[in-house]
Amino acid sequence: MRVRVVGFNASPRKYGGTARLLRVALEAARREGADTELVHLYDYEIKPCLGCLSDVQEACRPPCVIDDDMRILYDKVLGAQGLIIATPVYWYGPSGHLKNFLDRLTVFENMVLLGDRSWVEGKVAGVIAVGADSGEIMTISYILSTLNSMGVAVPPWALAYTKLSTNALSDRNAVMDAANVGLIVARMAQILAEHGPRQWYEPELPWLEDYISSLKAEAEHQAENELRSRENLWKRLLEKSGASSEERQT
Amino acid sequence: MRVRVVGFNASPRKYGGTARLLRVALEAARREGADTELVHLYDYEIKPCLGCLSDVQEACRPPCVIDDDMRILYDKVLGAQGLIIATPVYWYGPSGHLKNFLDRLTVFENMVLLGDRSWVEGKVAGVIAVGADSGEIMTISYILSTLNSMGVAVPPWALAYTKLSTNALSDRNAVMDAANVGLIVARMAQILAEHGPRQWYEPELPWLEDYISSLKAEAEHQAENELRSRENLWKRLLEKSGASSEERQT
Amino acid sequence: MRVRVVGFNASPRKYGGTARLLRVALEAARREGADTELVHLYDYEIKPCLGCLSDVQEACRPPCVIDDDMRILYDKVLGAQGLIIATPVYWYGPSGHLKNFLDRLTVFENMVLLGDRSWVEGKVAGVIAVGADSGEIMTISYILSTLNSMGVAVPPWALAYTKLSTNALSDRNAVMDAANVGLIVARMAQILAEHGPRQWYEPELPWLEDYISSLKAEAEHQAENELRSRENLWKRLLEKSGASSEERQT
Amino acid sequence: MRVRVVGFNASPRKYGGTARLLRVALEAARREGADTELVHLYDYEIKPCLGCLSDVQEACRPPCVIDDDMRILYDKVLGAQGLIIATPVYWYGPSGHLKNFLDRLTVFENMVLLGDRSWVEGKVAGVIAVGADSGEIMTISYILSTLNSMGVAVPPWALAYTKLSTNALSDRNAVMDAANVGLIVARMAQILAEHGPRQWYEPELPWLEDYISSLKAEAEHQAENELRSRENLWKRLLEKSGASSEERQT
Repeated sequence: MRVRVVGFNASPRKYGGTARLLRVALEAARREGADTELVHLYDYEIKPCLGCLSDVQEACRPPCVIDDDMRILYDKVLGAQGLIIATPVYWYGPSGHLKNFLDRLTVFENMVLLGDRSWVEGKVAGVIAVGADSGEIMTISYILSTLNSMGVAVPPWALAYTKLSTNALSDRNAVMDAANVGLIVARMAQILAEHGPRQWYEPELPWLEDYISSLKAEAEHQAENELRSRENLWKRLLEKSGASSEERQT
Repeated sequence: MRVRVVGFNASPRKYGGTARLLRVALEAARREGADTELVHLYDYEIKPCLGCLSDVQEACRPPCVIDDDMRILYDKVLGAQGLIIATPVYWYGPSGHLKNFLDRLTVFENMVLLGDRSWVEGKVAGVIAVGADSGEIMTISYILSTLNSMGVAVPPWALAYTKLSTNALSDRNAVMDAANVGLIVARMAQILAEHGPRQWYEPELPWLEDYISSLKAEAEHQAENELRSRENLWKRLLEKSGASSEERQT
Repeated sequence: MRVRVVGFNASPRKYGGTARLLRVALEAARREGADTELVHLYDYEIKPCLGCLSDVQEACRPPCVIDDDMRILYDKVLGAQGLIIATPVYWYGPSGHLKNFLDRLTVFENMVLLGDRSWVEGKVAGVIAVGADSGEIMTISYILSTLNSMGVAVPPWALAYTKLSTNALSDRNAVMDAANVGLIVARMAQILAEHGPRQWYEPELPWLEDYISSLKAEAEHQAENELRSRENLWKRLLEKSGASSEERQT
Repeated sequence: MRVRVVGFNASPRKYGGTARLLRVALEAARREGADTELVHLYDYEIKPCLGCLSDVQEACRPPCVIDDDMRILYDKVLGAQGLIIATPVYWYGPSGHLKNFLDRLTVFENMVLLGDRSWVEGKVAGVIAVGADSGEIMTISYILSTLNSMGVAVPPWALAYTKLSTNALSDRNAVMDAANVGLIVARMAQILAEHGPRQWYEPELPWLEDYISSLKAEAEHQAENELRSRENLWKRLLEKSGASSEERQT
């Protein structure tokens, strides 16, 4: 099945290191048979999230109360099975512009609370981070776990990074990793498109309630036994604790 | 295809909140058709990593130079297609015992540098974190990105957490999420066992070198144009910069 | 010495949980003798950073090439000895609007590379994070380490958080912690204003070069001895490694 | 006042990059007038935390129920006003051995819940991280925020890192930063020893209750107004939401 992989460049530069590695990833996805598109986030106005969620749960839904370019970007996200987020490392994190983009994706995930499914559930993502100092992994780790919390799958080796900044293409490992991010995101998106369930999260599990009841009983009983076996350990310490706190040094 | 899902309990308590949610996850995996096993990491001695890697790359390989219980645990990891890591939150991170376990998994990933593949590539993982205060997501994010860097896949919704500690089973959301971690890890492991490639990362991409050369040329040319278009922006600021630095307040 | 403590509310709501805890902190700072001010970041337009740094190091300096409301905010930062950042937790991190604010503070820190000092060096900061789910500590940890990397001091207990969202004031611990953030930031700012050095980072340490030379020689010599003592450990493993890699399970 | 700065080397190597930068930091502290000591954590057996806290709050207190070498290390921590933690980066975090050390420090912080103060309150810390790839900042950020949550102060520029591993001393920036970590930790420890309060956190604030009551009333009133002003925003969206959810693409 033909899949679509969209790469989001979160750098203000269209030809800097971030965009370069993203192009490598998209080229690899294309050669894997995917339709690809490169989107420069800085071409779009993305206003900061208004946090409606905290006031009126139902107000946080597509296409968001804010009428700005996110409406175009929402369509690009929904139209893709694979997402590659490429960002410069700004203070050990995504660029603020990308953070606004991620914040605004809440409309898709919040559909779970409105009785629907997450609109990004089952999509596949990879991340590329380009810095000049440190913080690449902190950035990547942050983005991947955020996306996973929205229901997005993270295939093996879904990350590439360099600290060579504009010279990213001279970093052999980073180039190989970026190409593999594209290749693997495309491949995983194809596998899931063909063999994955339409829905991943099961909101109703009929067996669960009974299981929890019996587990609770058993675990509480056993926990008490466990507790008793530790008691001697504590008793000794607690008897001495007056003394030990007087010994305290400063 | 029948898959095996192993749950690792990184709590010192066998019947505390961490273990309880892990049992829920494993029960869901079992009902999904997986063979399951619960391993209490505290039953095993796991010595701290000696960091051989920094001295002699080839020395970091299975079964590790340290002769301790990790040798048993290595087999458990290798024998599983799905891994569920459940940990209490100790200072916003995994328990130190689990950290030692993760550090020692380096022998599998380091095989990449020794000309082989990562021995955990293509396995599927989920994480459960149980705390009493805060730091669940920081813990989960850390573990998921570490595993992904070893080549492990992270399926949608691969995380569950609560801050109810021992009373974890009373946290309805956490219980549902934990069950889904088990269910989804099992399902994704099955999909990948049947349809995933044997190898994900492609260390040789014949098209890459030529592509990089032309991309480099194009990108550098375009970057120069981009640079020029910004020059006016900077010029104005730099002309005024002497003044502005005098205006500095303290 | 009288100090000034400015609180930055990074929530779109001026009367939500984030703003409420921030008011508590500022009241505590005021009672400690500080002048205080509450700034709602959402009242200001903060455009995303253009990353000039990667092109022309010297272009990244106050007041930034971007002519927007940050110029007002820069003055507020420079005029304060104590900073309290209060943010809602959006996807386990600061609001995107705050991220843009932090990104744009680079102009102060980058002065180090332009031969000056960081313009925020020696200021004192605390952080308040208000969420409804998880990620408070991840948010706080991110902001504190970012500020510290700009030369800002973090006094004891510089953090407060709750997951009660709008009902933050009903979280007794969070309220106490927020009050202490204000109190302690003010107190530390006073101490440093009176007794701290004007400059913290010493860019020239005359003794360093000689010390490094002798340390290098000594450390390399000792490292070799250390290496030799480990050799037997490795030898045994490497001899067996052919075998062990055949034993690999999948 | 003469202060004591203790450096903890969390690397298994006593002469590797981590230890080298730590020596630089301690030398700088010594030249600043501090007594210094270098402690190799790998020389001590540190068993994993048993998490007594979750069962019996009072059992988590010095000197910990576990009778191992931490008892020696507890004294070293208590005897110091300045702490420098130096760690290799293992999977983007502290070495597991250091994580166990940090977990075990809970006995000091938990004294807060037992009616005393945190026994590490007001100490001053810095962190050095040495890696070969990425994750230095993630490691440092983790350790600094953990220590701050125990009541430890973080002075300006309390961090140094390199990815040159064993060759750390060839990284000019890292060496300068490490020296400044030592110098600044010592200086801040002196300032706080002379001018800091004996107690930072105020557990009783007589003005707080009244203030909260009036703040609550005011904030709730204002929040309602704020809510009303947003209503139109939501209304438009909610009216259209049936339509928009049909437009959804997959």
